[in-house]
Amino acid sequence: MFRSETYKNRRAQLSKDVNEGIILLLGNTESSMNFADNHYHFVQDSSFRYFFGLINPDIAGIIDCDSGEEMLFGDDLTIDQIVWTGFQPTMKELAEQVGIDKTAPFAKLAELVQKALADGRTVHYLPPYRATQRITLSNLTNQAVSKVDEGASVKLIKAIVKQRNIKTTEEIEELEKAVDITAQMHIAAMQHTRPGMKEYEVGAIVQNTAKMHGAELSFPMIITKDGQTLHNHYQGNTLKSGDLLLCDSGAQAVSGYCGDMTRTFPVDKKFTSRQAELYQIALDAHEAAIKELAPGKRFKDIHLLAGKTIFEGLKAVGLTKGDTESAVAAGAHTMFMQTGLGHMMGMDVHDMENLGEPYVGYTDELKKSTEFGLKSLRLGKALEAGNVITVEPGIYIIPQLIDLWKSEKKYEEFINYDELEKYKDFGGIRIEEDFVITDEGAKMLGRQVPKTIADVENTRA
Amino acid sequence: MFRSETYKNRRAQLSKDVNEGIILLLGNTESSMNFADNHYHFVQDSSFRYFFGLINPDIAGIIDCDSGEEMLFGDDLTIDQIVWTGFQPTMKELAEQVGIDKTAPFAKLAELVQKALADGRTVHYLPPYRATQRITLSNLTNQAVSKVDEGASVKLIKAIVKQRNIKTTEEIEELEKAVDITAQMHIAAMQHTRPGMKEYEVGAIVQNTAKMHGAELSFPMIITKDGQTLHNHYQGNTLKSGDLLLCDSGAQAVSGYCGDMTRTFPVDKKFTSRQAELYQIALDAHEAAIKELAPGKRFKDIHLLAGKTIFEGLKAVGLTKGDTESAVAAGAHTMFMQTGLGHMMGMDVHDMENLGEPYVGYTDELKKSTEFGLKSLRLGKALEAGNVITVEPGIYIIPQLIDLWKSEKKYEEFINYDELEKYKDFGGIRIEEDFVITDEGAKMLGRQVPKTIADVENTRA
Repeated sequence: MFRSETYKNRRAQLSKDVNEGIILLLGNTESSMNFADNHYHFVQDSSFRYFFGLINPDIAGIIDCDSGEEMLFGDDLTIDQIVWTGFQPTMKELAEQVGIDKTAPFAKLAELVQKALADGRTVHYLPPYRATQRITLSNLTNQAVSKVDEGASVKLIKAIVKQRNIKTTEEIEELEKAVDITAQMHIAAMQHTRPGMKEYEVGAIVQNTAKMHGAELSFPMIITKDGQTLHNHYQGNTLKSGDLLLCDSGAQAVSGYCGDMTRTFPVDKKFTSRQAELYQIALDAHEAAIKELAPGKRFKDIHLLAGKTIFEGLKAVGLTKGDTESAVAAGAHTMFMQTGLGHMMGMDVHDMENLGEPYVGYTDELKKSTEFGLKSLRLGKALEAGNVITVEPGIYIIPQLIDLWKSEKKYEEFINYDELEKYKDFGGIRIEEDFVITDEGAKMLGRQVPKTIADVENTRA
Repeated sequence: MFRSETYKNRRAQLSKDVNEGIILLLGNTESSMNFADNHYHFVQDSSFRYFFGLINPDIAGIIDCDSGEEMLFGDDLTIDQIVWTGFQPTMKELAEQVGIDKTAPFAKLAELVQKALADGRTVHYLPPYRATQRITLSNLTNQAVSKVDEGASVKLIKAIVKQRNIKTTEEIEELEKAVDITAQMHIAAMQHTRPGMKEYEVGAIVQNTAKMHGAELSFPMIITKDGQTLHNHYQGNTLKSGDLLLCDSGAQAVSGYCGDMTRTFPVDKKFTSRQAELYQIALDAHEAAIKELAPGKRFKDIHLLAGKTIFEGLKAVGLTKGDTESAVAAGAHTMFMQTGLGHMMGMDVHDMENLGEPYVGYTDELKKSTEFGLKSLRLGKALEAGNVITVEPGIYIIPQLIDLWKSEKKYEEFINYDELEKYKDFGGIRIEEDFVITDEGAKMLGRQVPKTIADVENTRA
């Protein structure tokens, strides 16, 4: 947690930007697994945490933009609860830690919200991403559950994105630590993976490294020999000589800040020549993209540059052909890189994804494309100093996509389908690191994880 | 997954027991952390899994008790989804694995349910424990969200409890494996804990051992030097010489079945004499309870026997006094053992807790007590062969409870408050193992984890 001044300043700025009405930020509740009292590990709502700092469940915060009043709503423990949870700070004490004087029981929140609505005032709230938020907002605002989402405040979203988009020095320090834990997770996996292991045993090493720092995983890790399956959470395969292993994982540190990295390495000590050839192309795309990172550069253009680098590189392998500019303009590179180049990162691994890509990754002038490939690019707009982003190009050989597009004769002038058939069992490669945009360019976060073919092979030896 | 016959037989029995109307079992959906697409690890609803076997999200099953028809509702993947998830079996293929011929898209479920309701038929569903189930049931049955809970079918609950209460041989085999992983988690913690470690580093060892078997934690682990705080999930303390460490954790194996064990051991290689004295009393209560396990024995009586053993044992230490029978009848032992002796265990670590304790742990004749202590006993009724349960007595020295009851002069005739004051920094002890009730008595599940003082100290050495 930062000093209370940090949260006070953030709230003052938010109040000024939203300017009228009441801002309502719901903290998260516990999330049940298979019965009500068996909870997943608690994850606080990031916007609530950003402005109110607290990581306890079942709290909501109010900022009255007109009166300047700020309040926290939550309940103190009874003696029966203290037996189970031990002494906990009171709401009053928690509130003081983040610079707030007024607190009330959670049940009083509905009164305040409904009085405000009755008085014709606007109650600004964020779009829900959990069903329980939808029900709470429905009860608080007397709207049908199905109507809650459309009532979310665009003004509030924009004001929050404005602040959270630009990471402060103290935030970058915390991000640096989270990414450094993430780097250690990847180094451990690269050092200890051996043929015969199950994917989940590598997963155990990765998770253990996070946990040894008191951290959680910032998202469900991907540890797979089938890296071409982009969101592959199956970890039951046995790793064999000749396999490539793709590891995509990150830590969410105690501070709440996240890391997100990917490495792809051979289960053997050395890449095969075929693996090395495609790995180098993915790495070239990664390095080309990194060189471009700077304020004012449109991330969409950097994404397309990575696509061009991959398309061009694959010509030498015999998988692509024709004019690279025309091919990428037509989308032919999406046979290999179906994903976006990267995304914002902060307290959410995809930072502010719940606030909506139109506000976080795009602008009123630059809308997100609906084309295959580009529609998966979460960040398109020009970079600004203080943005924290991932850069994660990849080459994915997806048999189902090859079969489909080949049957449709799609991109025939750009893709050598006969040659590509021979690569159907190849798998996938992704290389991902995290960067903060600086005034001059960009700085990588966390310690360096082996990335060149030589460095990876040295680590595997 | 068991053979399809297993699920067919279970459904046939359920249909027979419910006898009329339509049974609707909702599988779980993914659960979002801090934005919609960032999911916690998926946990299937246990009743859905028990009768329909599948571990995929977003599926629902129907059993028509009148026509005998069975159906699964869920959606096949589009090519866009296959790019992200890889090939997955179709709904048709999944259904065949569990002996079902008819499938339909999820959207068709509402039609079927609403036609049944319009025809005046009963639609039996289970009480929701996630907000998303509440919204889905509200939409399916045209009830207000706030009315959904009270519409749950007691007939369905009772019919499900009747089956799930008695574990079959194939279930016990899976439980044995899950508890054995759990045992290994505890042995690893006992072997590797050292002064100077953080609690979360022990947690990392425990979780790593589960993950190395492809298992998840069956509940949020408790790894704490403050064992008197019963649901203590804080793991930020540094372990010091002289501390006692309480580890309560369990695995949920790939099969879905759970383990749940607790060990308490010194951070040093040896117990202090004070620790050993109280540990032996907790162990005596544990052993006394285990000896009683047999069909026909009321678990509430065994719980009270454990309370008596603890109360009696603490007399020699000078913490209690007076007639043990009268003290336990009055509830004086709950100064030390505020919790229940144990609970059912199966695919839920507190098996069927979502179905309600009145049906799972009690009967129409034996209702749960509302007294402090007994109100935390989830299981009171007579044991039956095939029940799988935990036995977990404990001694917890809770300063806040001592202060409160002392100020109220509560149990003055049974508790030596002056002596107890000296133990306020003691902490807590719990010893927990898992048992299946057999025709003759009971059998412990999983390998033996060191439990006697000598065995624990040998493992710590």
